Amino acid sequence: MKIGVIGGGQLGRMLALAGTPLGMNFAFLDPAPDACAAPLGEHLRADYGDQDHLRQLADEVDLVTFEFESVPAETVAFLSQFVPVYPSAEALRIARDRLFEKSLFRDLGIPTPAFADILSQADLDAAVASIGLPAVLKTRTLGYDGKGQKVLRTAQDVAGTFAELGSVPCLLEGFVPFTGEVSLVAVRGRDGETRFYPLVHNTHDSGILRLSVASVAHPLQALAEDYVARVLEKLDYVGVMAFEFFEVDGGLKANEIAPRVHNSGHWTIEGAECSQFENHLRAVAGLPLGSTAKVGESAMLNFIGEVPAVGKVTAIDDCHLHHYGKAFKVGRKVGHATLRCKDMATLQAKIAEVEQLIGG
Amino acid sequence: MKIGVIGGGQLGRMLALAGTPLGMNFAFLDPAPDACAAPLGEHLRADYGDQDHLRQLADEVDLVTFEFESVPAETVAFLSQFVPVYPSAEALRIARDRLFEKSLFRDLGIPTPAFADILSQADLDAAVASIGLPAVLKTRTLGYDGKGQKVLRTAQDVAGTFAELGSVPCLLEGFVPFTGEVSLVAVRGRDGETRFYPLVHNTHDSGILRLSVASVAHPLQALAEDYVARVLEKLDYVGVMAFEFFEVDGGLKANEIAPRVHNSGHWTIEGAECSQFENHLRAVAGLPLGSTAKVGESAMLNFIGEVPAVGKVTAIDDCHLHHYGKAFKVGRKVGHATLRCKDMATLQAKIAEVEQLIGG
Repeated sequence: MKIGVIGGGQLGRMLALAGTPLGMNFAFLDPAPDACAAPLGEHLRADYGDQDHLRQLADEVDLVTFEFESVPAETVAFLSQFVPVYPSAEALRIARDRLFEKSLFRDLGIPTPAFADILSQADLDAAVASIGLPAVLKTRTLGYDGKGQKVLRTAQDVAGTFAELGSVPCLLEGFVPFTGEVSLVAVRGRDGETRFYPLVHNTHDSGILRLSVASVAHPLQALAEDYVARVLEKLDYVGVMAFEFFEVDGGLKANEIAPRVHNSGHWTIEGAECSQFENHLRAVAGLPLGSTAKVGESAMLNFIGEVPAVGKVTAIDDCHLHHYGKAFKVGRKVGHATLRCKDMATLQAKIAEVEQLIGG
Repeated sequence: MKIGVIGGGQLGRMLALAGTPLGMNFAFLDPAPDACAAPLGEHLRADYGDQDHLRQLADEVDLVTFEFESVPAETVAFLSQFVPVYPSAEALRIARDRLFEKSLFRDLGIPTPAFADILSQADLDAAVASIGLPAVLKTRTLGYDGKGQKVLRTAQDVAGTFAELGSVPCLLEGFVPFTGEVSLVAVRGRDGETRFYPLVHNTHDSGILRLSVASVAHPLQALAEDYVARVLEKLDYVGVMAFEFFEVDGGLKANEIAPRVHNSGHWTIEGAECSQFENHLRAVAGLPLGSTAKVGESAMLNFIGEVPAVGKVTAIDDCHLHHYGKAFKVGRKVGHATLRCKDMATLQAKIAEVEQLIGG
């Protein structure tokens, strides 16, 4: 079976590493000459709107999937004429746009921060008056890793901010006094079977995920699964979805969904019986889903900008390096380490060891 | 770091799957147009003696390693002029030839079946008179998976057999009444650090490995490690080596070594903290070695000729598919499954499930 992937970054790379042992081959559509998934499959180097190359991809592969949600809607619609596409155009349409996403949460009874659609500075002023400060103004589309958003704390922050974010459609979200950030990675098969990984505690810095720790019997696991199942069923979703929540007052408020394998699920490569990457491929290919049970206690630490010396990372017991083969760039995710340990105490000690490498 | 691999079969494929997350790139030299490692790196399609392509490979990579031991000595010698080669030409020279191999065992005080060098039918007749029957006549080089050998039980089997095996240099080995076959996979770094995986029980059928089960505290582990360490040190070996033994009278008799990652170590991908493939690459690259400790209880079953339906293999809990992406061929190793279970009882039940798929 040959899988087409829109995007050829580290998520595509890890999909190929997981799918090759299943007998799958890969083709990546990515305009970047140095797309880091390229060594693991065919690289169609073209823009995401290039219909000649999209048609070529559709002709070559059995199905198409995505490694990022900002794919143009036209790309998905065009491909869907010729080849099965998972997740669906509708799932991508919702997940790509913060307004549609938040509206879906509200419609399904999933708690989410107060929000308002912002199409002008006047809209913003009115929404701030209603929702209050602090609040966060985010572009409705194309934001990631803290990009395309601004925290508003004072009236001064509000003035002129719509233009500052490019005068594009935005969403204002009320600030929630969260005690933690968690994500649930779920997978749903073509037949509707759904499985959930354990909730993951996430720590961000400057909007970029730094540390994910798989939880042990988290008290909000069942609640999170209930919320995520509502979205998966509503969208008749196929594949892996990650759902980010704020922990607020012992409950959960929905932040956002990612209709794809997700950074907070990278620990599953070593830390779960079947990784999010293999499970995504099983789902889209119509294969039985794999177990989402943990193997030991696991955490994931991102390498941002550069990977520490390979000899130092590999010298740490219980540590598994994932180098994305990318060049150094400030703020870029260039690799991660998974720690898989026999107990939480060991895990905490190992996290400190890897953090020292990153800091040093 | 770019690694050159002589041979582009499933061992090269699994080396690349293990090395890519370490940030390594791969180039495979293999004359086969459909070399199954090719999708994971650069494919130099040329004969093993093609000096132009060997020179190109040497220029492109940081070091060269092998996925099979029958590489011509000239190839190794040629490459060694330009680029580091691990394991060394001397290790390959020994491992490639059953006479040199058995002589090394004898010189190092490692018990091994009686053997005699056979260069003619007269040599064979004399050796049979001395060693007795049953015995096994094997070509000194190029044998694998039961090819290039013949079991001799009667005087009739002996007559004309030297010519039957091609009138090439052979070794006659006395038959040992073994109760089991085990292998020890070891890894030795450039600095001499050595680690051993648990002993593996192997079951062959028609000379081809069918089932490997990682042992639990095998009583002969320490003895096997002692024997293997002697060979590794004598050869100043760098990389993974597999050492096959017969279990005889509660002791071990050396059968043969493979100077490379080995089929009986495939279970380590899921079943050990660090797989034989990653550890081989760590060793040859001069990185710290990874832990050889088990994760759960594991076994490996080979798929010979064809891989069962992917949907059926993936439906079995605790089962991890490794499809080599090869075409069907009688007697060809085309894939394997690793079972990683919480205890030996579960493992035995799961082995039976996979065996049913293979049989059916």
